[in-house]
Amino acid sequence: MTKSNNNNFILFGSTGDLSLRKLFPAWYQLEAANLLVNNFKIISVGRREFTEDEFKQLVQQAISTYIGQDKLNADIVKRLINRINYVKINIQDIDSYKQLLKITGSKTYYLATPPEVFADICENLYQAGMIDQCSRIVIEKPIGHDLASSKVINNKLASYFTESQIYRIDHYLGKETVQNLIALRFANQLFSSQWDNNHIDFVEITVAEKVGIEGRWSYFDNAGQLRDMVQNHLLQLLCLVAMEPPMLLDAKSIHDAKTQVLRALKPITAKNIEDNLIMAQYSDSGKDGKFIPGYLNEEGAKKDSATETFVCIRAHIDNWRWSSVPFYLRTGKSMGKKVTEIIITFKANTHFIFDKDQKKIASNSLIIRLQPEEGIALEMLTKCQGIEGGMRLKRDKLNLDFASHSRTPDSYELLLLNSIKGEQGSFVPRDEVELAWIWCDRILSEYKKSSLSLHKYPAGSFGPSCVKQLIEKSGHKWYEDK
Amino acid sequence: MTKSNNNNFILFGSTGDLSLRKLFPAWYQLEAANLLVNNFKIISVGRREFTEDEFKQLVQQAISTYIGQDKLNADIVKRLINRINYVKINIQDIDSYKQLLKITGSKTYYLATPPEVFADICENLYQAGMIDQCSRIVIEKPIGHDLASSKVINNKLASYFTESQIYRIDHYLGKETVQNLIALRFANQLFSSQWDNNHIDFVEITVAEKVGIEGRWSYFDNAGQLRDMVQNHLLQLLCLVAMEPPMLLDAKSIHDAKTQVLRALKPITAKNIEDNLIMAQYSDSGKDGKFIPGYLNEEGAKKDSATETFVCIRAHIDNWRWSSVPFYLRTGKSMGKKVTEIIITFKANTHFIFDKDQKKIASNSLIIRLQPEEGIALEMLTKCQGIEGGMRLKRDKLNLDFASHSRTPDSYELLLLNSIKGEQGSFVPRDEVELAWIWCDRILSEYKKSSLSLHKYPAGSFGPSCVKQLIEKSGHKWYEDK
Repeated sequence: MTKSNNNNFILFGSTGDLSLRKLFPAWYQLEAANLLVNNFKIISVGRREFTEDEFKQLVQQAISTYIGQDKLNADIVKRLINRINYVKINIQDIDSYKQLLKITGSKTYYLATPPEVFADICENLYQAGMIDQCSRIVIEKPIGHDLASSKVINNKLASYFTESQIYRIDHYLGKETVQNLIALRFANQLFSSQWDNNHIDFVEITVAEKVGIEGRWSYFDNAGQLRDMVQNHLLQLLCLVAMEPPMLLDAKSIHDAKTQVLRALKPITAKNIEDNLIMAQYSDSGKDGKFIPGYLNEEGAKKDSATETFVCIRAHIDNWRWSSVPFYLRTGKSMGKKVTEIIITFKANTHFIFDKDQKKIASNSLIIRLQPEEGIALEMLTKCQGIEGGMRLKRDKLNLDFASHSRTPDSYELLLLNSIKGEQGSFVPRDEVELAWIWCDRILSEYKKSSLSLHKYPAGSFGPSCVKQLIEKSGHKWYEDK
Repeated sequence: MTKSNNNNFILFGSTGDLSLRKLFPAWYQLEAANLLVNNFKIISVGRREFTEDEFKQLVQQAISTYIGQDKLNADIVKRLINRINYVKINIQDIDSYKQLLKITGSKTYYLATPPEVFADICENLYQAGMIDQCSRIVIEKPIGHDLASSKVINNKLASYFTESQIYRIDHYLGKETVQNLIALRFANQLFSSQWDNNHIDFVEITVAEKVGIEGRWSYFDNAGQLRDMVQNHLLQLLCLVAMEPPMLLDAKSIHDAKTQVLRALKPITAKNIEDNLIMAQYSDSGKDGKFIPGYLNEEGAKKDSATETFVCIRAHIDNWRWSSVPFYLRTGKSMGKKVTEIIITFKANTHFIFDKDQKKIASNSLIIRLQPEEGIALEMLTKCQGIEGGMRLKRDKLNLDFASHSRTPDSYELLLLNSIKGEQGSFVPRDEVELAWIWCDRILSEYKKSSLSLHKYPAGSFGPSCVKQLIEKSGHKWYEDK
């Protein structure tokens, strides 16, 4: 496994939204933090005609827009801009790749392009002699549409690169709080000694998006929320919460621990699907006197689509640590608010010496909030303040608020840095992608065969009401219902 | 055990400092919270000549001084003042007690007087026929000077009152945070499941007073810091931290659990005293260009006093739960700052996957702060924010700050209320007093026989430097040295 710093970063799709909105601003922050080596170059590849200066101007504009002009330091901008070249390449035209031959040193390729062109780019890079042992390739989701199609992509990549050269991005893994989950779990004995089915009652992982489909109806309709969010982000979070403590902090130890979780995920079968799965789609609604279109009334919608925009799954991990602990996964579009949260609820004491009617509130929860503001909180039981309450208890939060500390780095800063440094731990290896697809493919096929209906929920709500029943059937409650 | 509301509160020493500074303001708060029953009366006893109105004015003035005129509500003041009578009694003159005979209903006596007159008051109350089964008596420390003298007082009280009628105040037990310790320990599985020698490394209990002797030199010199602070406050805190979980929250269960701790306290003996005890006295010092007199230069001092103003003890509790966990007790006068804190430090993980040089910081501490501001914090390890640090850890606090919530009630509010209601759990029963004396008497006698010297520490410092060595010898560090 190469762990050296690669000094050339070749960005395909450099004029696209991801590059301008996320990557160049992230490089600005890395530059500001002095984390880029002296001879580091960003070779920006695009199909459009740009002079070097025009492209540099485009980047400067993007940085200014997405970071804020007032927060920029002119010297740092200048240093970054000096690292940038623009190269016009026609992806299909092998001859145009020859321009890259003048690049000396190690190369990291980043494909900020649709997956359909991955193969062509790889093949042409290969033909041009641009791939060697030090080369790395960074790609974005989606890695396929199901197990079979993901294998096609992964096989293709594998014919040019070894697995240790391939960096698959799940941008959730670059989030500060997700990284902190590792510190939280393994540096704090208070948690590490309780991180199992003896002490934890259940886990909630919620990724609620406030936005609806936003102009990508056809693309989304072909995927659905399970493929769009569960197969990658939610399962990655689940893995980090549930994995066995890795022997070391290196990529291999972490990947091994994560794949073990995916392997232990209990399949959703014809027998258990009714208790464990809810699929739903948002419908027209009005909120604050404003009409919010349902999924079938979004721009470009087909009126008969049965694609889910919301999924709720009661997942189980069949291993020693997690046997009998449900993991409630929940994600949807056009929901009441944007929130991404992992909530670990610990078992309550069985002997209870306070007022009996308070027993139901007497459990500790650890709240790991990724959005809207990253933070960690521990929900404790304390005495109601003052003498009136006697020994009445109340739930109270011990808070650690990252937002109040300093700037929370965007996940792409860490991911870019790690791809430059050769730290593969925060990327997704092939077997994780495939194991996640196996579990999700099974859900979709069982769902199709089942008699489960597609529920409806009003746009802007927090999902269909049966979601509450799903969790309450096991004697639990969603955090917001407590 | 009587648990009814007593409606007459007879306060001996009603014109003294404690009554004016603490008790009447506390009654004001109880009145404001509607916690006093309609027919509740405060019969204020003093030896001075006051008309009813003069005394009521004195009380009004005291309330205004100690609560703040701007915070007072005139209606509440009026309601409280209406409950107050003044009765001039000569403590030694049995005839003057006859004035109390007109009081109808149940009676709580509060002796805010020097302990020397407890016996006379009890005897005269008895002779006047003022003690019945419903009567209660509330007394302040000191309960004796050692085991023998405490027995004299307790025996005297016992000849007029049963133990269930006697309420011995340790005002630390009325503090909000001390009460919260019960909730914290027993309502939170996260802590209750880890509250033992498998999970806790060591405990610090620090009561540092900023003030020196403040004009009570002779009294203090006869006692010393061990008798003045350890025998009561520090051992009470130790009991609440260390006691077995009580079966119920009632007084008996809590008292039983606390006495078990005192019984299990390992005696300081000739053999172990050198490792486990430090006695010290503050000496002259200058701070910020200001001279601070040492103990021997305080007003009224005898120049050859060898009385300790600072004590540090490494205590052990010889039972299943606490075997091998040191409890470091530390208290002194004229110290750098006023702070009362209990710090529970949990054991660190033995397998450590982060940077090895950080292992020494990787333990969780629970901080229970009684002074200057009551609060609870949990010290966690989190990832250094930002991408520069990689997976470097830092200590970070999850905070619960009572001061920021609302008014923290004074401990006398709870203690008065509980003495009126007959809740004995927050008072000190006889066996606790005596067991604490047995342990402290032994320390003092072993200390006298030993060759241990009385250390010196500069007034305004945090004790002699050997205090650091005492804890570090067992591989620990004081919280402020971490």
